[in-house]
Amino acid sequence: MVRKSVLQSRAPVAGLLAALLVCAAGAFAAPDPLPSWNDGPTKTAIEAFVTATTDPSGPRFVAPAARVATFDQDGTLWVEHPVYTEVMYTLDAIPALVAARPELAGVEPFKTVMSGDRAAIGKLPETDLLKLVAATHAGMTVDQFHDEVKTWIGKARDPRLHHLYTDLTYRPMLEAMAYLRAAGFKVYIVTGGEQDFVRAFASKVYGVPPEQVVGTMLATSFTDAGGKSDLTKEPKLLLNDDKEGKPQGIHLVIGRRPVIAFGNSDGDREMLEYATGGPGPGMGLIVMHDDAVREYAYGPANGLPDSRVGTFTQSLFDEAKTRGWSVISMKNDWKTIFAFTPAP
Amino acid sequence: MVRKSVLQSRAPVAGLLAALLVCAAGAFAAPDPLPSWNDGPTKTAIEAFVTATTDPSGPRFVAPAARVATFDQDGTLWVEHPVYTEVMYTLDAIPALVAARPELAGVEPFKTVMSGDRAAIGKLPETDLLKLVAATHAGMTVDQFHDEVKTWIGKARDPRLHHLYTDLTYRPMLEAMAYLRAAGFKVYIVTGGEQDFVRAFASKVYGVPPEQVVGTMLATSFTDAGGKSDLTKEPKLLLNDDKEGKPQGIHLVIGRRPVIAFGNSDGDREMLEYATGGPGPGMGLIVMHDDAVREYAYGPANGLPDSRVGTFTQSLFDEAKTRGWSVISMKNDWKTIFAFTPAP
Repeated sequence: MVRKSVLQSRAPVAGLLAALLVCAAGAFAAPDPLPSWNDGPTKTAIEAFVTATTDPSGPRFVAPAARVATFDQDGTLWVEHPVYTEVMYTLDAIPALVAARPELAGVEPFKTVMSGDRAAIGKLPETDLLKLVAATHAGMTVDQFHDEVKTWIGKARDPRLHHLYTDLTYRPMLEAMAYLRAAGFKVYIVTGGEQDFVRAFASKVYGVPPEQVVGTMLATSFTDAGGKSDLTKEPKLLLNDDKEGKPQGIHLVIGRRPVIAFGNSDGDREMLEYATGGPGPGMGLIVMHDDAVREYAYGPANGLPDSRVGTFTQSLFDEAKTRGWSVISMKNDWKTIFAFTPAP
Repeated sequence: MVRKSVLQSRAPVAGLLAALLVCAAGAFAAPDPLPSWNDGPTKTAIEAFVTATTDPSGPRFVAPAARVATFDQDGTLWVEHPVYTEVMYTLDAIPALVAARPELAGVEPFKTVMSGDRAAIGKLPETDLLKLVAATHAGMTVDQFHDEVKTWIGKARDPRLHHLYTDLTYRPMLEAMAYLRAAGFKVYIVTGGEQDFVRAFASKVYGVPPEQVVGTMLATSFTDAGGKSDLTKEPKLLLNDDKEGKPQGIHLVIGRRPVIAFGNSDGDREMLEYATGGPGPGMGLIVMHDDAVREYAYGPANGLPDSRVGTFTQSLFDEAKTRGWSVISMKNDWKTIFAFTPAP
């Protein structure tokens, strides 16, 4: 009995030691939260910023409620080249629209799209693209539109990479989102894409719920009949969530200045200025598409021809240097780009 | 030693029993989550709806992510009679505005406001009120406006009740917000008031953060100079968050149909229709101001003269009955209205 009693009295100490050893082992074995990033200045800068803004005893601490992270989508979270995914959706939706409204068949820009002439479609000016977007994103309830996008995105594939568009997300960015969430940041998508289009898949693809998607906003009209109410999408632009529209949209939906912002083009410049031009800590990051082998290389700041999508000008590159924004080189900073292995 | 050993072996059981007894006592003593509500059909209906929508095995279960609760502010969360608090702010801000821009002194509606003629001010049409709101809510950065409202609301008092406006919140509604939050609902304010005005105090007064305030939206302009960026409020209306503007604003900011909505006037009708006109469960509640002793009594549905603020028409009252919305009688349903005891 004595022996048992001694054992009992020592047991808690032994248990404590065992627990400490387990904890210590856990600490040493803590997995890298950004495994798809190569070690280097960009990864180090992200980790240092998150450490500084979450250290309650440090001078750059940000209260949990104010920890807002914003990510552009096209070219920042997934492939945008050579054509935005939403433009592909729009073009795919035109035949059904023209079938329902035959009077559009002879009207531009619908006529060009229906001709199937890829070169001519590729040359349509932005005003025509906006007309096509408005026509295909309106005239139905928000729930119907949600279902149509969900169905399309569940099967549509990128012509070159032969994968679902939703597979063309960048693994390092999904890791950055998860890392920021674990550090108490609220993660938003702030996209030039139409808000409801991106909401239709953002929860599933990025873990971002509808209320955390800020995008280009179209008007809706409200109807109520027989106890059933609906919002119908209207072809009327409320906010173009691009360039200065990004901080404006952020203010409308979030009402807080972002603490960290990720973009990839001149359309994200003002969002990064907003994130880094306030009284508190702010970090800006820009993805540079410089990996022709694993993804694409484009943009003048890259010494390459201008692109219709994701323009990254020399002036943006210069501003990034002046303001200390991190330029993410896909080629050098990303160990892995996609969750899958692209076909050769 | 034997005795000790027996005690030791029994200790865990005794501890477990003690813990169970504490838990049981806790369960029996569980405080009423809605102590300022009188027992009756309204309180019962709220509790039954929350129980049904949070029961995973029941037919009316709502997934946690979709649990959205929306509350109108003026007349629903705090006193709106006889003048909206924001109108008081606006009138108080006019002298400083006219001092800064003397050319306004001779221009209506500024001239009438500067005359101090209360009767004439009270008769200004809504278009003039909107002009005053636009003029006093613009021309400064969003941060400056936030600070101005915060300073004003920290000291401004209701002329009749002699309390800070922020003390004129309804205790039963603050309890309903807390009760819904505890049941996993995300609580939003959806107000006809200007969005940034309400954001300036909603965190402190209601525990509602800026990203959960949907209100009337003004445009902003973005500037960046010398590494400092700002959004300046512009006197341009983007969305009037009233009537059909409420479901529209909810869709822009939240992107989900509310599951439960609280209002008090015809301006909230469409929000309640939206909450209760969808495919899933929905509950609508309307506050009726029928307590002239403790607060105010007004509105035709109440058999009383029409009011300039918080109009509650007979047709809204009829619709509430048809659709099964709960009408909250301040007189009968609320045991306590304010956290303080009003002066006689």
